[in-house]
Amino acid sequence: MTGTVSREQVEAVRSAIAGVDSSDAPQTLDAFSRDESLLGDFPPQLVVFPRDTGEVQAVFRACQAHAVPLTPVGARSGKSGGSLPLHGGVALSLERMNRILAVHPEELIAIAQPGVVLDALHKAAEAHGLFYPPDPNSSDWCTLGGTVAENAGGPRALKYGVTRDYVLGLEWVLPDGEVLRPGRRTIKGVAGYDLVGLLVGSEGTLGVATEVTVKLVPLPKVVMTALVPFGSVGEAAVAVSRVLLSGLWPRCLELLDDVALEAVRGRGYPFPPGAGACVIAEVDGSREEAALADLQALADVCTRHGATEVVLAQDREQRARVWEARKLVSPALKALKGHKLSEDIVVPRSRVPEAIERFKAVGERLGLSVATYGHAGDGNLHTNVLWHSPADKPRVDQALAEIMRITVELQGSITGEHGVGLAKREFLGLELAPAMIDFQRRLKDFLDPRGLVNPGKIFAPRQ
Amino acid sequence: MTGTVSREQVEAVRSAIAGVDSSDAPQTLDAFSRDESLLGDFPPQLVVFPRDTGEVQAVFRACQAHAVPLTPVGARSGKSGGSLPLHGGVALSLERMNRILAVHPEELIAIAQPGVVLDALHKAAEAHGLFYPPDPNSSDWCTLGGTVAENAGGPRALKYGVTRDYVLGLEWVLPDGEVLRPGRRTIKGVAGYDLVGLLVGSEGTLGVATEVTVKLVPLPKVVMTALVPFGSVGEAAVAVSRVLLSGLWPRCLELLDDVALEAVRGRGYPFPPGAGACVIAEVDGSREEAALADLQALADVCTRHGATEVVLAQDREQRARVWEARKLVSPALKALKGHKLSEDIVVPRSRVPEAIERFKAVGERLGLSVATYGHAGDGNLHTNVLWHSPADKPRVDQALAEIMRITVELQGSITGEHGVGLAKREFLGLELAPAMIDFQRRLKDFLDPRGLVNPGKIFAPRQ
Repeated sequence: MTGTVSREQVEAVRSAIAGVDSSDAPQTLDAFSRDESLLGDFPPQLVVFPRDTGEVQAVFRACQAHAVPLTPVGARSGKSGGSLPLHGGVALSLERMNRILAVHPEELIAIAQPGVVLDALHKAAEAHGLFYPPDPNSSDWCTLGGTVAENAGGPRALKYGVTRDYVLGLEWVLPDGEVLRPGRRTIKGVAGYDLVGLLVGSEGTLGVATEVTVKLVPLPKVVMTALVPFGSVGEAAVAVSRVLLSGLWPRCLELLDDVALEAVRGRGYPFPPGAGACVIAEVDGSREEAALADLQALADVCTRHGATEVVLAQDREQRARVWEARKLVSPALKALKGHKLSEDIVVPRSRVPEAIERFKAVGERLGLSVATYGHAGDGNLHTNVLWHSPADKPRVDQALAEIMRITVELQGSITGEHGVGLAKREFLGLELAPAMIDFQRRLKDFLDPRGLVNPGKIFAPRQ
Repeated sequence: MTGTVSREQVEAVRSAIAGVDSSDAPQTLDAFSRDESLLGDFPPQLVVFPRDTGEVQAVFRACQAHAVPLTPVGARSGKSGGSLPLHGGVALSLERMNRILAVHPEELIAIAQPGVVLDALHKAAEAHGLFYPPDPNSSDWCTLGGTVAENAGGPRALKYGVTRDYVLGLEWVLPDGEVLRPGRRTIKGVAGYDLVGLLVGSEGTLGVATEVTVKLVPLPKVVMTALVPFGSVGEAAVAVSRVLLSGLWPRCLELLDDVALEAVRGRGYPFPPGAGACVIAEVDGSREEAALADLQALADVCTRHGATEVVLAQDREQRARVWEARKLVSPALKALKGHKLSEDIVVPRSRVPEAIERFKAVGERLGLSVATYGHAGDGNLHTNVLWHSPADKPRVDQALAEIMRITVELQGSITGEHGVGLAKREFLGLELAPAMIDFQRRLKDFLDPRGLVNPGKIFAPRQ
């Protein structure tokens, strides 16, 4: 898929789906031209808002019939440019398909439409004493469909896994408009190939989910959170690694380095003076005494490895304050220098200390401020390169390329939970062998021969 | 793939892979002609025993070059006929690729070859205080590669999930002999499509794993097991459902009905007199008091729902005895009447009581003894139809068909963990819509255009 799309083609699509709500109002096209990746503005020529699966099918069919690119869009909270209408055409918004269809506590499942905001699903599960663990930072505005497309993670992935560990079944519209219902309502089930596994995380390039059946688990009765300051990020990273080796299984082990701490301090959060890094540790369980004992054991490990103190959040409000600080990191870092490029790499957890050190060194050599924070417990680091002016951009790009190279050298992955999208398609070949990329391209071609669905994502254009 | 394979074709394969160990000794061909499915004898014409990935590739290429069917084989512990060389040709045994390559406690992963016996992997992980949860009944002889091909489960899936929840990365030989390395060494990672998800559970029809990287989790420090007798299987099934609704999350909730109990009693296991069904419940955790409190809460729920007593296994030996009884069910049932057909259906957990009742009714109507046991906590029931003589077989087949039909009517799946294989290919259409089967067939054709790899499995021959 390359080249531009004529007004006539788009009009032909609009006529073909006359019953489907759509808009080409300038403010709508503008709103759908960007996401959280800051990769630029790519306006669609038409935004469609189907209300049911039949309408979604009609949109796919019309776009195929008139060779118009179609880009599925969630809440535009993505950080890899996955929902940018790179080649114009139609943006497919599923925001009107936003109902939670059922929570079945006796089956430990929920069934929802893709436009449901993730926190609404969290709350619906919790109302039944159940738990839907995936918790990307944007959970108060990202949609379930977007998290399925990107296979979103979050802090709790350390203990509970990522989106694909919870999606049991899908209703899915393929690029040609055909509807499949892969998966099931039960934890087990092996009848045929696991298409759910293939489709979750396909970044809108193989079609879209129009209904999602997720697994729920019992809501932990007790959750305890502690803020653990360290003198340096190196000590903190080693302590995280030691906690995991000790046989404890906290649900979150988040790390904030000195730059991240400084940025959040600037927003008024009172990290202990002298702290050069912080770990946020969270444990959960069925019994208060057991959770407290686990947290105490975790505190002991941290103290042995340089923690200056362990501050236990005493109630729900204090817990919320700790997580608020964590959520502030990204915007606060951006404010620090005006611009930032946020990374999303993963390294084997034992390599986290080395990765952080080497990323800092890249920044120092290039004269750029590099902050690292993120899900240290599972090795998923959000390394941020900060910069002032557009003149810095070439050095930022160089830093980024070096961070990717180091990540792959450490046997990690270039993206842990944000996706390849547009942001990293040029780096995919660093991680995946040519045979792997070729295989995946062939799979994409097999399902979308003309490359009309979310064109330009995951794979770099062929030379 | 149909028709027979000439001696010349097989000889051509053998010449092409002259360096690879192989055998056509009658006793070897005989041994590889059957598995635990009891579906009959399908001898291969040659069994090959490659020692490394290069040799596996050579076998695939030679079979493709000479149009010889190739059937990957694990320990032949499968119950769906997945490893039967239905059309002769070459059986590919990976039993010599049986090394655990690494356990990395600091990364919580292990890397192993496919021929490793599953319990060896369990022990290797436990030696580092770590845990590999999948635990099919045959774990003392089935192989890791077989469990990957079948996406095996087991009792602990209730809390810990199935094989696909633990496979992070693969080295995989495709039907054309090409090697891919999908996946990674980290929990998170979303670079490209999730091919691991697609390949796990592909039942040997899309190639084989030659190396498997699995996620490990901290070994629970405390495990407690209880035997809970009930007057009837109906009461027991309801109690299981209530336990799950109560917010408890035991790691196993196994159910044995009256026929299963009777069979195991015949082997000398002293189930309490008067018990018409038993639940085996197991909880785990990091602290003894918490686990005990969870088990007590579980016992209370069971007692409120008809449990006649709750017998706590007091030590490791008593725990082993309880599980020995569970493992005895399958052979003891077979001995009861001489023959049995073991089912592996899943229903939504809330439908377990209804499913058991309706399966019993099918047996009564057809004059056959039907036993149900299995993983009631996740809805995965091993319903067994017992019979005496070949003359009963038509009624057995009829019972089987009715059980499948009821299962799908209850929104369940025709196979929870054993696979479709040869056993259930004719039933796949009961569960999956024509579009789903067509899509999966096209995927198979895309990867194996001549249908040479494990022919005749999952999909019924085209009419």
